[in-house]
Amino acid sequence: MCDIAPRAVTGSQIILGDEEIFEAHTGGKLSMQLKAPLDTQRALSIAYTPGVAQVSRAIAADHTLAARYTWANRLVAVVSDGSAVLGLGDIGPAAALPVMEGKSALFKAFGELDSIPIVLDTKDPDQIVETLIRLRPTFGAVSLEDIAAPRCFEIERRAIEALDCPVMHDDQHGTAIVVLAALLGATSLLGRDMKTLRIVISGAGAAGVACANLLLSVGISDITLLDSRGILDSGRDDLNSVKAELAQRTNPAGRTGGMVEALEGADVFLGVSAGVVPEELIATMAPDGIVFALSNPDPEIHPALAAKHAAVVATGRSDFPNQINNVLAFPGVFRGALDAGARRITPKMMVAAAEAIFSVVSDELAPDRIVPSALDPRVGKAVAAAVAAASDSAG
Amino acid sequence: MCDIAPRAVTGSQIILGDEEIFEAHTGGKLSMQLKAPLDTQRALSIAYTPGVAQVSRAIAADHTLAARYTWANRLVAVVSDGSAVLGLGDIGPAAALPVMEGKSALFKAFGELDSIPIVLDTKDPDQIVETLIRLRPTFGAVSLEDIAAPRCFEIERRAIEALDCPVMHDDQHGTAIVVLAALLGATSLLGRDMKTLRIVISGAGAAGVACANLLLSVGISDITLLDSRGILDSGRDDLNSVKAELAQRTNPAGRTGGMVEALEGADVFLGVSAGVVPEELIATMAPDGIVFALSNPDPEIHPALAAKHAAVVATGRSDFPNQINNVLAFPGVFRGALDAGARRITPKMMVAAAEAIFSVVSDELAPDRIVPSALDPRVGKAVAAAVAAASDSAG
Repeated sequence: MCDIAPRAVTGSQIILGDEEIFEAHTGGKLSMQLKAPLDTQRALSIAYTPGVAQVSRAIAADHTLAARYTWANRLVAVVSDGSAVLGLGDIGPAAALPVMEGKSALFKAFGELDSIPIVLDTKDPDQIVETLIRLRPTFGAVSLEDIAAPRCFEIERRAIEALDCPVMHDDQHGTAIVVLAALLGATSLLGRDMKTLRIVISGAGAAGVACANLLLSVGISDITLLDSRGILDSGRDDLNSVKAELAQRTNPAGRTGGMVEALEGADVFLGVSAGVVPEELIATMAPDGIVFALSNPDPEIHPALAAKHAAVVATGRSDFPNQINNVLAFPGVFRGALDAGARRITPKMMVAAAEAIFSVVSDELAPDRIVPSALDPRVGKAVAAAVAAASDSAG
Repeated sequence: MCDIAPRAVTGSQIILGDEEIFEAHTGGKLSMQLKAPLDTQRALSIAYTPGVAQVSRAIAADHTLAARYTWANRLVAVVSDGSAVLGLGDIGPAAALPVMEGKSALFKAFGELDSIPIVLDTKDPDQIVETLIRLRPTFGAVSLEDIAAPRCFEIERRAIEALDCPVMHDDQHGTAIVVLAALLGATSLLGRDMKTLRIVISGAGAAGVACANLLLSVGISDITLLDSRGILDSGRDDLNSVKAELAQRTNPAGRTGGMVEALEGADVFLGVSAGVVPEELIATMAPDGIVFALSNPDPEIHPALAAKHAAVVATGRSDFPNQINNVLAFPGVFRGALDAGARRITPKMMVAAAEAIFSVVSDELAPDRIVPSALDPRVGKAVAAAVAAASDSAG
């Protein structure tokens, strides 16, 4: 693992000590609150017996009333099996929980959505989908998180089929949305036509596959992906079905080999693996290059090194400029889908989300400002509105 | 269903309109909150990337740290399949959710415990236990709620065996604890020896069975249960295994028949069914009788009618005096068990809980005050302390 100590490197603006981090996580980061106090007999009679029986009776008679008289309809289940947590890999459900609590906190802070973290002690796709089906009346949407590829593709597909509510694997589509938003920002800043870019994606897991698909969908044709064994080319016989299918639709120049062959003359490096890319290879990219080194917590290349060779550099971290982080997307995407009563989160809604993120900074672009700050309160609202408008449920 | 309109009957102190009730439940009763705001880049770096990776790494290396750095260890899963909700019966998981949200609100208000409502779209014991096992890393305790008998007995037993954390079916043991507390209060007030009482329990479901067991465990020997077909006597061949076993340990006088035969000369009527008991039968009880008509939302007999014939009358409702409601027990029981790091909630802890509830009002007893108010802030703390002290984990 590439060891980047924020305190030691130029470009990091925030120095975090372990003591401060662990102190902030002690006891967890969430708290369940009552929307109204239960401090009088009357309040108790309304919220609990006998009052609640009226509400339960009404829902029993008309199940659609659950949407109005419970929190479930607007509650996001943040679900992980802990098999691909950040860039840390398969660290298990217990170790994944701090990240899921963090996601819940972000849903609240940036989407004003309630959510519950759910970590599952199984990695079996059948069991995960079956569990979600059993839990269905508990929530109104599912944000799948940090589930390893290729299982994540099957689990998401089957969950979308089985559940009549929005389901999105954030590591796939949340990442793809913010990458597209950042690419809109970078190309607008540099005055380049996005569709002519030669893009190299390092990582053919959840994020890499989804990024490739979303970028293809907006008309970018020259995309080359690499997995740990090199470039995905259609001649390889060691690819899983998802990669094999993608190899047919990417790498139009038919390149073979590894990162050396892929990066030479490329316009964009998009890192969504836990790997490392040496500065020497970034130096071989075309002029005015774009480097998005998104692996968390350790970017594929330190942004200060990448900036020596590229015109625009971004990472996934909060403590460097140009944070391409899913937090720009998922709170507003789910909020918009739930606001619209959408049953699916479609590619059209994802592109709308990316354009909404870009629109927030389109008049403020700078090399260190191709995306809005993760803290920008305009983002969640803009994304939610755009996603709702782009949903099939929109009028 | 016995139709008791609170607004129309003497003894009800609170008039609730449907509009007020439904307004209070709109959007649900819970809200997820952040323990610290995410309003600076520094806060985001600590709570999310890159800071959270340190915490996840630490837990991956030592799973016991999840107890310290997540909320799960002190989080109660409030779990129902909606098969026996209040006195309303099998109304399904969606209609059960307002009650589970209410339970979560009570856990917070009276036990200062976070909890999440989980309603399951399955009634199969295998599937329910299996789902809890898969969800295990998500929570630190399970409060089973409103699951019909006799499935509830098997589900609770198997969940206790399978999960290394406190599990309690509240409809069974929460009810038994508050009933024992109320009986301590009533007999103390009336100067009677609890062990000599002849007790009739109407209802041999979750609550009836657990009440019988807990009362037997403290030395009360003359207990007669009735189900919908009459007295549980050992000659009946239509009893499920739980009832048949209990018939061997109760009804020492060998009574047969129905409520008429059971109630004549009885000291205590304990109603934990959704049934109705006519005033004429209450009138046949022994002098200085005790009537606990606990069915919710509709007591087996209106307390004003029962009071014409009994010395002490209680219901389960918030809007009558002497509310024998589980809220006196479950927040403190779970809080005490979690405080002590207990892996089981034992009968000894349950008796300690009942004595703690009684202790709060032992100096203030009156016919309309045999149990503390559900709002009394002393109760949860007293119960938690007593339960923690009575746990096997106590030093």
